Amino acid sequence: MLFETPSTDKPDLIGKPFKKVHTVLDLHVMVSRWKDSGETIALVPTMGGIHDGHLSLIAKAQSVCDRVIASLFVNPTQFGENDDFETYPMNEKMDTKMLRGAGVDLLFLPSLDEIYPKGFSTSITVSGISNELCGAHRPGHFSGVATVVAKLLLQILPDVAIFGEKDYQQLMVIRQMVRDLNISSQIMGVPTKREKDGLAFSSRNLYLTVKERIIAPKLYRVLCTVAEVALKQPTNLKKICEKAKEDLTKTGFSSVEYLLVCDSETLKPLEKIEAHARVFSAVRLGKARLIDNVPICF
Amino acid sequence: MLFETPSTDKPDLIGKPFKKVHTVLDLHVMVSRWKDSGETIALVPTMGGIHDGHLSLIAKAQSVCDRVIASLFVNPTQFGENDDFETYPMNEKMDTKMLRGAGVDLLFLPSLDEIYPKGFSTSITVSGISNELCGAHRPGHFSGVATVVAKLLLQILPDVAIFGEKDYQQLMVIRQMVRDLNISSQIMGVPTKREKDGLAFSSRNLYLTVKERIIAPKLYRVLCTVAEVALKQPTNLKKICEKAKEDLTKTGFSSVEYLLVCDSETLKPLEKIEAHARVFSAVRLGKARLIDNVPICF
Repeated sequence: MLFETPSTDKPDLIGKPFKKVHTVLDLHVMVSRWKDSGETIALVPTMGGIHDGHLSLIAKAQSVCDRVIASLFVNPTQFGENDDFETYPMNEKMDTKMLRGAGVDLLFLPSLDEIYPKGFSTSITVSGISNELCGAHRPGHFSGVATVVAKLLLQILPDVAIFGEKDYQQLMVIRQMVRDLNISSQIMGVPTKREKDGLAFSSRNLYLTVKERIIAPKLYRVLCTVAEVALKQPTNLKKICEKAKEDLTKTGFSSVEYLLVCDSETLKPLEKIEAHARVFSAVRLGKARLIDNVPICF
Repeated sequence: MLFETPSTDKPDLIGKPFKKVHTVLDLHVMVSRWKDSGETIALVPTMGGIHDGHLSLIAKAQSVCDRVIASLFVNPTQFGENDDFETYPMNEKMDTKMLRGAGVDLLFLPSLDEIYPKGFSTSITVSGISNELCGAHRPGHFSGVATVVAKLLLQILPDVAIFGEKDYQQLMVIRQMVRDLNISSQIMGVPTKREKDGLAFSSRNLYLTVKERIIAPKLYRVLCTVAEVALKQPTNLKKICEKAKEDLTKTGFSSVEYLLVCDSETLKPLEKIEAHARVFSAVRLGKARLIDNVPICF
């Protein structure tokens, strides 16, 4: 864990120089200045709704580079027709305050037109890993993610870009894309930051009612149980996952989209435990779609 | 025209330092050295089969940048099943000699594995303009082009990359991709270099028999006639194009894939002449598929 205390207890860094830019042109001015003076740059892309999970990414960024840029852009192309684009919980004022408080040097807050100007017509697809897990349930989602992340990386060309392992499949899709397209940035993953009761920090937790919030941490506990039991019964994965799905439904989750043990590189479902395995799940709980994953450690 | 004399008459530049590299790592060593010393870099991507058309791109590159890198890679992903990938006329030794003779500083000659390592799974698609003209007849072609060109641009991050207007649609697809993905290189087009009889230089001209080589220049003459007549009868484009296709078939071309007057930005076929129009055609002549295009100038 990179932060042990909630964000409000962190030292006040408001006194540090902080800049907010809205255009790629203004972004380039700052980035060039830093690069010319030999400073390294880390990028933390966000869609706002800033929480302690994001702040753990910022902390990692600060530990590996001289300068940290956070971007804040709710990317419409990664939302499906029935997804929550319209209600996604970004709050520019609060998000800016939290990122500034965490010591971010530059916040890039582009408009929709700045990212997708008139005539925009390019998309990036990573086949294979994009089709598993969430990809099977959210067609076009990872193509939207890959395209916007490529743009952000190429606008800044940071030394490092940082993503949370909570969105593990996203991290893997971006890693593959960056490798395939020879983008010069290093992609770093940061372990999932959790509430004390185990619930992974997520902007979408805000959708939960008080009652649902009590049920939600059960997802993490069930995933940990699957990881434990799978080690003891390495060839019995199908039954273990079926049992876990029943547990989740009984506990009060509205539905289980998937719960699978997969290879942590290819994300293909495994029939028996192999060297690199991970448990992945997506569930519905009231208005929220929650995802989580845990490694299976030997 | 950038060169008025054939390439063999050019000054001998063999004495100039020249380097050939096969890996991205070796490429980076040279590129970093030049960038660190403030030199500008132009990239000229080729698939080999070097001719005077390529040399005119090299000359343009030399006129705008300090250093010129040429790449030589026959990209399998832009060939369809029935295309000429297997027989494409690259001759490494001859191509190297010609590029060296033209004063190229660095030749990048990657293997297939260097460009598409095991597990490669990313592709870039530019919708809209990719679907017109050649795109309608060569499914996946422009996605293959866009992906490999993005890789070359991101491997080198040249100040300028140079493409011939003979492949006008390719130039437009690359321009759109570079704009959309915020790739920092400037894309420059160079007017088509032609033989004295008007035939556009093309690696595929080598497929022509002596008899076909006599027929081939008629394509350019017909396109010029269409451009002239279209200015006099600006609302009669459909008939003008039909007549031109008949002329081509009568002259001895095996078939006409398309002959259209299109908007030079969107590449959409026009019903009447507008501000920016261009005549495009693709024909078959024996084993060769030839393409050409000319602007309609007011």
